[in-house]
Amino acid sequence: MSEISLKLKLELAKKLVREAGDFLLAHLTDTVEITEKSRFDDLVTNLDKAVQMQVIAGIRAAYPDDYFLAEEDADSDNSSDVKHDILDGNVWVLDPIDGTTNFIVQRDDFAVMLAYYENGIGKIGVILDVIRGNLYWGDGQKSYKNDRQISLVQKPLRESLLGVNTYMYRTNVGGLLDLSFDTLGVRAVGSAGIDYVHILDGKIWGYFSNLSPWDYAAGSVLLAPFDFVTVQLDGSPLDFKGRQMMMSVPKNQLAIIADYQAKSNEKKK
Amino acid sequence: MSEISLKLKLELAKKLVREAGDFLLAHLTDTVEITEKSRFDDLVTNLDKAVQMQVIAGIRAAYPDDYFLAEEDADSDNSSDVKHDILDGNVWVLDPIDGTTNFIVQRDDFAVMLAYYENGIGKIGVILDVIRGNLYWGDGQKSYKNDRQISLVQKPLRESLLGVNTYMYRTNVGGLLDLSFDTLGVRAVGSAGIDYVHILDGKIWGYFSNLSPWDYAAGSVLLAPFDFVTVQLDGSPLDFKGRQMMMSVPKNQLAIIADYQAKSNEKKK
Repeated sequence: MSEISLKLKLELAKKLVREAGDFLLAHLTDTVEITEKSRFDDLVTNLDKAVQMQVIAGIRAAYPDDYFLAEEDADSDNSSDVKHDILDGNVWVLDPIDGTTNFIVQRDDFAVMLAYYENGIGKIGVILDVIRGNLYWGDGQKSYKNDRQISLVQKPLRESLLGVNTYMYRTNVGGLLDLSFDTLGVRAVGSAGIDYVHILDGKIWGYFSNLSPWDYAAGSVLLAPFDFVTVQLDGSPLDFKGRQMMMSVPKNQLAIIADYQAKSNEKKK
Repeated sequence: MSEISLKLKLELAKKLVREAGDFLLAHLTDTVEITEKSRFDDLVTNLDKAVQMQVIAGIRAAYPDDYFLAEEDADSDNSSDVKHDILDGNVWVLDPIDGTTNFIVQRDDFAVMLAYYENGIGKIGVILDVIRGNLYWGDGQKSYKNDRQISLVQKPLRESLLGVNTYMYRTNVGGLLDLSFDTLGVRAVGSAGIDYVHILDGKIWGYFSNLSPWDYAAGSVLLAPFDFVTVQLDGSPLDFKGRQMMMSVPKNQLAIIADYQAKSNEKKK
């Protein structure tokens, strides 16, 4: 796709995500309808679904032939496919409210995330930290926070904090607990989008979690200009299908992380 | 002490904490001098010390006979006692920068905390969330966020999040991990002051950590109007001396928490 066409898609993505954020802010003090998905702590609200429908409608109006990979299942009256294969064609990846539990309980630390991939290659990433009003966006070459280009300075592990999934941290999956002992500590914020924003703001060194494609699609594009990789714990690519344990870390640190993993595997023997 | 005298002390406390916050904001982009205390991840900066000296000087000018219990050791050229016994007389308890690691690494999620106790009874609590500019203050009877009186509605555990110390969480101290399984999850923010602010904002149900007196003195006063207790894990009082594992939780939940503790002790046998 031409550069100009991509630029138009990026502008549309930014606009739709900003509108989604405004919509959520307008409904922030509403009583939301909460539904349990897989279990009592896996929640979705009517607003997740409303935002998803809004954003998809906005894209479809401009690009009727593009595909979607989105968090919430399509309603029964909406027969369209929202779980399209990332490798096949022009695919928009959407998480309408990332950190739904935070949205429900805290009314803070949640994000709207939208990405665009062509045949599996990330071309656009957009994350809105809704409460702080900061929009992070990029094309995989450069990333911006609002109107300012982001620059990232990699700090030593011993002067850094890690963003973690609490299960993986406490069970030392991939040596994550051991790794954390050589840092200033871990932070658990409960939203992939906010963790990505924290990497882009230089607040955490990297992020380790158990995520679905819509949780990492935008963050992966936004971190690419800084030589970060978003991969499985063993360094292999993510499949953009089900939930997978993964990490977003500086590429030049993969060997160091592999050492911690090897040592933790030794211990388990 | 008379009510009018206490009101004057409260106004002074608010003023000094606001000034400390302004000072930290003015120096937020400075290169700070960082010193290791007990180990590489236990840090103090020149700004912690500067704020402590400023606040103590401000109190001393008005109340020369009052005592202090403050986080940072007094410099060698400052022979005054800043580790006074909380049970003895009029004692100001100060944490100049709570969440020093966050301050250094993230430039976010840190707090200035000041409390005032008379013979061990909390009379004043003040916490400033420096970056968001929100001042939480109270006299143990009522608590305020800026100019608005705070009201707290207790939610069921299953609809709540917990603020935790990551060590206590992952090792299930006091049954904390087991307790967390019956909640929507845990959040680790790395600053007692910000955790207290999160309780006061209704974002977390309670807070479990391993703290020194200056970490919990102000929060304890601010939560008292809502029938919260700030106690050791077995429910006994804190000694306001060394670091202790503790919790700030709704008093009517102590029996439920004790059940989790008993079950976790059973498992360990």
